[in-house]
Amino acid sequence: MKKILIIHGPNLNLLGRRERDIYGDTSLEEINNRSKRHAADAGYEIDTFQSNNEGDIVDAVHRTVGQYDGAVINPAAFTHTSVAIRDAIAAVDIPFVEVHLSNIHAREEFRRISLTAPVCIGQISGFGPDSYLAAIDALIRFLANRS
Amino acid sequence: MKKILIIHGPNLNLLGRRERDIYGDTSLEEINNRSKRHAADAGYEIDTFQSNNEGDIVDAVHRTVGQYDGAVINPAAFTHTSVAIRDAIAAVDIPFVEVHLSNIHAREEFRRISLTAPVCIGQISGFGPDSYLAAIDALIRFLANRS
Amino acid sequence: MKKILIIHGPNLNLLGRRERDIYGDTSLEEINNRSKRHAADAGYEIDTFQSNNEGDIVDAVHRTVGQYDGAVINPAAFTHTSVAIRDAIAAVDIPFVEVHLSNIHAREEFRRISLTAPVCIGQISGFGPDSYLAAIDALIRFLANRS
Amino acid sequence: MKKILIIHGPNLNLLGRRERDIYGDTSLEEINNRSKRHAADAGYEIDTFQSNNEGDIVDAVHRTVGQYDGAVINPAAFTHTSVAIRDAIAAVDIPFVEVHLSNIHAREEFRRISLTAPVCIGQISGFGPDSYLAAIDALIRFLANRS
Amino acid sequence: MKKILIIHGPNLNLLGRRERDIYGDTSLEEINNRSKRHAADAGYEIDTFQSNNEGDIVDAVHRTVGQYDGAVINPAAFTHTSVAIRDAIAAVDIPFVEVHLSNIHAREEFRRISLTAPVCIGQISGFGPDSYLAAIDALIRFLANRS
Amino acid sequence: MKKILIIHGPNLNLLGRRERDIYGDTSLEEINNRSKRHAADAGYEIDTFQSNNEGDIVDAVHRTVGQYDGAVINPAAFTHTSVAIRDAIAAVDIPFVEVHLSNIHAREEFRRISLTAPVCIGQISGFGPDSYLAAIDALIRFLANRS
Amino acid sequence: MKKILIIHGPNLNLLGRRERDIYGDTSLEEINNRSKRHAADAGYEIDTFQSNNEGDIVDAVHRTVGQYDGAVINPAAFTHTSVAIRDAIAAVDIPFVEVHLSNIHAREEFRRISLTAPVCIGQISGFGPDSYLAAIDALIRFLANRS
Amino acid sequence: MKKILIIHGPNLNLLGRRERDIYGDTSLEEINNRSKRHAADAGYEIDTFQSNNEGDIVDAVHRTVGQYDGAVINPAAFTHTSVAIRDAIAAVDIPFVEVHLSNIHAREEFRRISLTAPVCIGQISGFGPDSYLAAIDALIRFLANRS
Amino acid sequence: MKKILIIHGPNLNLLGRRERDIYGDTSLEEINNRSKRHAADAGYEIDTFQSNNEGDIVDAVHRTVGQYDGAVINPAAFTHTSVAIRDAIAAVDIPFVEVHLSNIHAREEFRRISLTAPVCIGQISGFGPDSYLAAIDALIRFLANRS
Amino acid sequence: MKKILIIHGPNLNLLGRRERDIYGDTSLEEINNRSKRHAADAGYEIDTFQSNNEGDIVDAVHRTVGQYDGAVINPAAFTHTSVAIRDAIAAVDIPFVEVHLSNIHAREEFRRISLTAPVCIGQISGFGPDSYLAAIDALIRFLANRS
Amino acid sequence: MKKILIIHGPNLNLLGRRERDIYGDTSLEEINNRSKRHAADAGYEIDTFQSNNEGDIVDAVHRTVGQYDGAVINPAAFTHTSVAIRDAIAAVDIPFVEVHLSNIHAREEFRRISLTAPVCIGQISGFGPDSYLAAIDALIRFLANRS
Amino acid sequence: MKKILIIHGPNLNLLGRRERDIYGDTSLEEINNRSKRHAADAGYEIDTFQSNNEGDIVDAVHRTVGQYDGAVINPAAFTHTSVAIRDAIAAVDIPFVEVHLSNIHAREEFRRISLTAPVCIGQISGFGPDSYLAAIDALIRFLANRS
Repeated sequence: MKKILIIHGPNLNLLGRRERDIYGDTSLEEINNRSKRHAADAGYEIDTFQSNNEGDIVDAVHRTVGQYDGAVINPAAFTHTSVAIRDAIAAVDIPFVEVHLSNIHAREEFRRISLTAPVCIGQISGFGPDSYLAAIDALIRFLANRS
Repeated sequence: MKKILIIHGPNLNLLGRRERDIYGDTSLEEINNRSKRHAADAGYEIDTFQSNNEGDIVDAVHRTVGQYDGAVINPAAFTHTSVAIRDAIAAVDIPFVEVHLSNIHAREEFRRISLTAPVCIGQISGFGPDSYLAAIDALIRFLANRS
Repeated sequence: MKKILIIHGPNLNLLGRRERDIYGDTSLEEINNRSKRHAADAGYEIDTFQSNNEGDIVDAVHRTVGQYDGAVINPAAFTHTSVAIRDAIAAVDIPFVEVHLSNIHAREEFRRISLTAPVCIGQISGFGPDSYLAAIDALIRFLANRS
Repeated sequence: MKKILIIHGPNLNLLGRRERDIYGDTSLEEINNRSKRHAADAGYEIDTFQSNNEGDIVDAVHRTVGQYDGAVINPAAFTHTSVAIRDAIAAVDIPFVEVHLSNIHAREEFRRISLTAPVCIGQISGFGPDSYLAAIDALIRFLANRS
Repeated sequence: MKKILIIHGPNLNLLGRRERDIYGDTSLEEINNRSKRHAADAGYEIDTFQSNNEGDIVDAVHRTVGQYDGAVINPAAFTHTSVAIRDAIAAVDIPFVEVHLSNIHAREEFRRISLTAPVCIGQISGFGPDSYLAAIDALIRFLANRS
Repeated sequence: MKKILIIHGPNLNLLGRRERDIYGDTSLEEINNRSKRHAADAGYEIDTFQSNNEGDIVDAVHRTVGQYDGAVINPAAFTHTSVAIRDAIAAVDIPFVEVHLSNIHAREEFRRISLTAPVCIGQISGFGPDSYLAAIDALIRFLANRS
Repeated sequence: MKKILIIHGPNLNLLGRRERDIYGDTSLEEINNRSKRHAADAGYEIDTFQSNNEGDIVDAVHRTVGQYDGAVINPAAFTHTSVAIRDAIAAVDIPFVEVHLSNIHAREEFRRISLTAPVCIGQISGFGPDSYLAAIDALIRFLANRS
Repeated sequence: MKKILIIHGPNLNLLGRRERDIYGDTSLEEINNRSKRHAADAGYEIDTFQSNNEGDIVDAVHRTVGQYDGAVINPAAFTHTSVAIRDAIAAVDIPFVEVHLSNIHAREEFRRISLTAPVCIGQISGFGPDSYLAAIDALIRFLANRS
Repeated sequence: MKKILIIHGPNLNLLGRRERDIYGDTSLEEINNRSKRHAADAGYEIDTFQSNNEGDIVDAVHRTVGQYDGAVINPAAFTHTSVAIRDAIAAVDIPFVEVHLSNIHAREEFRRISLTAPVCIGQISGFGPDSYLAAIDALIRFLANRS
Repeated sequence: MKKILIIHGPNLNLLGRRERDIYGDTSLEEINNRSKRHAADAGYEIDTFQSNNEGDIVDAVHRTVGQYDGAVINPAAFTHTSVAIRDAIAAVDIPFVEVHLSNIHAREEFRRISLTAPVCIGQISGFGPDSYLAAIDALIRFLANRS
Repeated sequence: MKKILIIHGPNLNLLGRRERDIYGDTSLEEINNRSKRHAADAGYEIDTFQSNNEGDIVDAVHRTVGQYDGAVINPAAFTHTSVAIRDAIAAVDIPFVEVHLSNIHAREEFRRISLTAPVCIGQISGFGPDSYLAAIDALIRFLANRS
Repeated sequence: MKKILIIHGPNLNLLGRRERDIYGDTSLEEINNRSKRHAADAGYEIDTFQSNNEGDIVDAVHRTVGQYDGAVINPAAFTHTSVAIRDAIAAVDIPFVEVHLSNIHAREEFRRISLTAPVCIGQISGFGPDSYLAAIDALIRFLANRS
C-alpha cells in the first residue's frame, strides 16, 4: 500500500485550542483522522508527525526516503525562516506539497514569502483543515500522473 | 443547481500549444471539460471565461454577483500587476479561489507576490491542470462549510 | 458653453452597491448627476465616462483634445499601475484634476503613490462623492485664472 | 456661529514674496482674507495661525478642542517630517483637511509621502491659494454631512 | 514573401501631434510608411498594428504565430508594467525586437527597466523614428543568420 | 538628596483626555505624582518637564548637567525623528532611561526604530504609566551600581 | 500562590563566564536566585527555564498555559529570528514581558528588530541583570491591574 | 560694511564642554570670536546666532533677507532631519555655506545625507573650528566673484 | 571624409575565442573589418580602439573632440561601473551610440543598468556583431538629420 | 595531543547520497576519516559532530571550551539564519574556521551572506570535501602562529 | 620647505574647455597656478598630478609617503566608485582633503555618496576653483595644529 | 613543470609597511617567496604579478591562457567594484581561487559582497599570508582531482 507522511510544524499541536478565530476549532488529531480517512479512500496510508523543533522536522524529512511515496508539510512558522528544512526537502527526491491553514497572503508582510515552497511541487493555503485534504488529493494525482 | 465561474487570465488560451515544458500539453478546453465533469460529480455547474484583457476580467468578476456561488480565478500575468482585479474581487462578496498551473514560488522573483491572493479565500499553485480540480474541491467544501 | 469630462476608473460602476463602508452608498449615477448640477451652476456642461478597461480610458483621455476645457479623473486602481494613462494625460494639453473617494494616504501602502498625479494639476482625496465637487470647483477656478 | 481654524506651517509667512514661480504671488494675508470671506458666505468664521515652529503647531492643534468645529492645515515642510503633528491631529477629535499650494506629487521624491495625511479626513494639493478654498468647502460639507 | 509585424503600444497614435519636443514631429503613419518602404527594399512586407489596450496587444502578439517571420514592438508605457505582454512574447516562438523612440535610460527612473526586453532578442532605444528602421534591419539580419 | 528629571515629549500633556484606548486614562499629572511618590520611597526627588517643542526638550536635556543624577525621558513622537535630542543626550554624561507608554513594537512600522534609545542606558515600553515606575527603579539601581 | 516562568534563550547559560564586558559577570544562577527572591517579596513564585533550542522554548511557552500567571522571556538570539516563538506567545493567553541584558538598540543593526516583542505586553532592555527585576515588577503590576 | 550671519544649530552651545574627543575643546564663543576677527580682516562684519530650536533657525534664515550679504550655517542635527530649514534657505536669495565640525562622511550612516546642502552653494566638513574660517573665506570669495 | 571612432571595452579583445555560446565566434578584428566596410558604403571612415583599461578609454573619448563626427562605444563591463567614462562622454559634444553584443536585459540583474547610456543618444543591445552595424547606421542617420 | 572539533550542520548527514551534482559523492564519514588522517599528520586529533538541530550545535560550540584548541564548522543552512550559533562562537574564545563544500557566492542570493563568518577567523568555500582539509591546515597554522 | 600634492581625477584635464556651465571656464593649469601661488604665500610648495586612470592615482597616493606633508584630492568620478583609492589613502598616513568643484549634494543621487571622504580629514565641495584654495588653507591649518 | 600565477590587486604592494594591525607585517615579497617554496614542494612553479591598475589585472588574467594551469587572485579593492575582472576570469577557462588576507565578512558592509568570487572555484579569507598557502593547496588539489 502506498504511504504519505504529513509533517506539522511548530505550534500546530495547539490547533483547536488557541486562536480559534484565525485557525478554526478543529484539533490536530481531527485533521489527522480526517486526512487518514480521506487518503484511505484513495488507497493511501498516512502517517503523521508534529514537532516544534526545526531539527526534528529536518530529520523527519530525511526519513521519508524509502519509506513514503510523498509528503504533505505545513512548516508553519518555519516556512519563513528555515533554510535547513528547504535544503532537506531539496535533498530527498520525494514530492512534497506545502499547506497552510490560513491565507498567508492576507496576513503580515513577512508571512508572504516561503523559503520552502520553491522546493515543493506546489503550495495550498487558506482553506483551514481542508487545505490538508486538497494537498493529499493533489499529491495523489501527482503520484498517479508520474507513474 | 449551484454554479461556479472559472476565469482564465492572459495567454492561457495558448495552453497546450506553447511552452509545454512549463505549462504542460493540456489545452484550455481540456481543462475546462475536466473541470466541468469534476464539478458535476459534486452537483455543481461550471461556466468558463478567458480573456487577455484586464478590463474584461474585471467585468467578469462583477458579473459573478447574483449569478454564481463562487469562482476560481487564474489571473496569470495579472496576478502581479492588477490592482483593478484585486479591487473587483474585494468588491463582490463571492468567494474566489486563486490558482496557478506552475509553482509561482519557484520562478522569477516578481512572480512570488500576488496582488489578488489577499482578497481570495486561498491560493493553490504548482499542480498543473490539477490545480483547477483542487481549487474546485476547496471552493465546494468552503461553500458547504458556510451553508 | 464650456465643457468638462469626468472619467471614472475601474470598479466605480459598483459604487453604492458594494463595500459601502469604504466608499459610501452613493451610486455613480448620483455622483454624475450631482456633478452636472454643480457645474451647471457655474456655467459648465459635464460629460461622464466610466470604464474598467485601461485602454478605453487612454482613448477617453485622447478624445478630450478639442472637445473639453478640462477633465476630472478618478483613475481608481489604475492610479497605482498605469503608466499608459499617465502618458496619455501628459500628451494632451487639457488640465486634469485627480480625485479619490477615500483618503488614499490612510489605506494600504501601495495606494499612497500615484503614477498619474504628477501630470495632473492637483489631487483631491478623501471626501467621498464630495471629492468630485471639490475637483470641479478647483478645475473651474483654474480655467478662470488661466483665461 | 461655527468656527474653523486654518494652520499654516513653516515658511508660509514668506508667501508672495519668495519663489513666486513655485508658490505664486499671493501673500498669506490675502489667502487668509479670501478664506475668511469664502467661509463667511457659508456661515463659518475663520481664525488663522502661522508658525515656523513644530511645537507651536502642536499646541495650536491641541487648542482646537472645544474651540473649533474643524481645521484646515498646510503643514508645509512638516508634512514629511513631523510625527508630533500627526500624533496631535490623531489625538484631538476635530476633523482636519490637509492642503498644499503646489502639487506635491510632481516635486522631489521625499515630498510625495505625507506623515499627516493619514490622520486627516482628506488631502488637497496643487491648486495654489485655491487649495485653501477647496479645503474649506470640503470641510464644511463634511461637517454638514456629519450633523 | 517574408512578413514582419510592427506593434505600436499606447499613446503612439498621437505621434507627431503631441509632445513633439520629446517624440519629434513625425506621425505614426509616416513611421509606418517609412518602415514599409525600408523593409520592401530588403524583400520584406510589413503590417502594422497600434493599440492603447494591453489585451489587444497580447492578442496581436498571439496572431504573429504562423503569420509573420518576426516582429518589432514598441510597448511604450506597457514596457514597464505589462507581464502579460512579456508572457505573450515568450509564448510565441517568433523573434521580437523592442524599440523606443526616446532614450529610456535618460528619462524617469521607472522607465529604465523593461519587463519585455528580456524575452526579445534585443532592444534599440533613442533614435526617434529611426529606431524602427534600425530594428527592422536588425531583425532581418537575425532572420538571415538563422536560416 | 539625589534628583531625577522626567522629560515628557509632545502630546503627552493630553494624557488621560485623548485616545484613552491606546494610552489609558491616567493623566500626566497623576503619572508625575505617582512617579514622585515612588522615587521618594527610594530617597530620590523628582522634577518633571513636558514640552511639545523639540528645542525646549534639547534645552531641558542640557540643564540636567550638574542638576540631576539621572533622567527618564519619553520622547514620544520625537523618538523617531529627533537627531537633536539624541545628540543632546549623548553630549551630557547623565544616564537616561527611555520609556514608552505603549508597546512601540506592536504599532506602525515607523515607530519601531528609536533614534534616541542607542544613547540611553536602556529602554522600557508597553506598560502604560507603569513604564515610568519601572524606569525610575532601573535608573536608581543603575545609579546605585555605579556608585 | 501566583507563579511566573522565566525563559532564558540561547547562550544565556554562559552568563558570567563569557563576554563579561558586554553581559557582565553575574551568572544565570545568580540572576535566577535574585529574581526568585525579588518576586517572593511580592508574593510570587518563580520557575526558570533555559534552553539553546528554539523548539524547547516553544514547548516551554506552551506549558505556561494553566501553570503560570505570566512569563518573562529573554529570547536572546531568537529575538531576531524566531517566528515560531512569536507564534507560540501569541497562541497562549499568558502575558509575556520581553527582556534583554544589553541595550539592543545600541548594537548591530540586525539586533534592533524584535520578532517577539509585538506579541508581548512590553519590552525592557539595557539594564543587565536588573532588566529581569524590572520585568518581574512590570509583570506583577500588569497582573494586579488586570485583576 | 558687508555683513555675514553665522547660524549654529542644536547642541553647539555645549561646544568645548562636552564630547571633546569628537568636537574638540574650543567653545562656541571662541569660534565666534575667531570668525569675527577672521572676517574683519577681509572687511566683513559677522553676527552670530545659536538655537536648539528648528523654528527659531527658520526665523533666523528669514531675517537674513535685506540684512546680510551671505550666511554660514552649521545645521548640526537638523542637517539630516529639517525640510523646514531647507525650504527656508531655498526661499531667501542669500548665499549660504554649510559647515560641519566633524567629518560627517566618517560617522553614522544617517549623518552622511544632508537635506540642507543641496540648497547651499557648498559644504565644508571635517576641519573642526577651522571649518568656519574656511566657510567664511569661501563665502567672501563667492560674493566677490558675483559682484 | 567623415569619421567615426569605435571604442571597445574590456575583454572584447577575446571575442571569438572565449565564451562563444554567449558572444558568438566572430573575432573583434572581423567586427572591425565588417564595420569599416559597412560605414565605407555610406561614405564614412572608421577607426577602432580597444582597451581593458578604464583610463585609456576615458582618454580615447577625449580624443574624439575635433577628430571624429561621432562614436560607437561598447563599454562592456564598464557599462555598469564607470562614472568616469560617463563623465567623459558627457564632457565632449560628439554623439555616442552605446552597443552591446548580448541582450543585457536578459542577463544578471546588475547588467540591466547602464551608467553610460543616459549620456549617449541611444543604446542597441542583443544583436551580436550586428549590434555594431545597427549602431553605425543609427549614428550616420543621426548625423545626417542634424546637418 | 592537541584537539580540533569539526561541527557539521543540517543535512550534511546525507552527503554522498543526495544531490551529488552539487555536493559530490563523498560521504560524511569519508570526510571525517580524511580529515582525521590529515590532521594526525600534523599531530592533531579530531573529533566530529553532526546535527540537524540548531540548539545541539550551540551546545557543541559551548563544549569546545577547555576541550579543544580550535574548531572547524560547516553551519550549512544555519550559516544564513542562526544568530544563536553566531553568538555561541563569539562567546567562546576558541578559534573557529567556517567551511562550505560549494561556492556559496555562486548560488542563490540569500546564500551569499553569512551570519557566522564575522565571528570566525576566516571562511573557506567551494572546494568540496577539500574545503575541510584547507580549513584544518589554516586552523593549525593559526594555532601555531599564536603560540 | 613643506610640500603638498594636489591630485586631480578623471576628466579634470578638460576643465575650462568643456561643460563650462557646470564647471566654470577656469582651466586646470590656472587652478594649479593659483593653488601654487596661494600655498607659496603660506610657505608651502605644491606639486600637481592629473590622471584619468584609477591605478595611476593609487600610485600617486602611494608616492606621497615621505615626499609630502599632505595632499588635496579631487577624485572626480572615482569619488563614487573607487574602493582602491579609498584603501590607498587609508594606507598612507598623510592627511588628505577631498575637494569638488561643483556641489555634489545638488546633483544626481549617485554623486552624493563619497567612498573616499571617510578616510580624508574633511571634504569641501561647491566653490568651483576656490574649493582648491579652501582645501589648501584647511590642510595647512590642520598641519599647523598638528605640529 | 606545472605553473600557477598569483595576481595581487591594488595596494598590496604596501603590505608589511602600512596598516600592520589589519594586514600584518609580512611584505608582499615574503608572501611571494613563501608561496613559491610552498608550491615547489608540490611540484608547482609560481609566477607573481601585482598591479594597482584594473586594466593591467584584466590583461594578466587573459595571459594565463596557455601559460598557467591555474591562478590565485587577491583582487583586494577590486573584489567589490570590478565587473571587468569578473568577466575576464569567466572568459578564460583556467581555474581561479580568490583569497583575502583579512576576514572580509568582519569588515565594512560593502566588503562582504564579492563580484569575482562567483566565477572562481572558491574563496578563502581571513588567514593573513596563510590565505595564499591555503589557496595554493586548494588549487593544486583541484587540478589533481580534475586530471
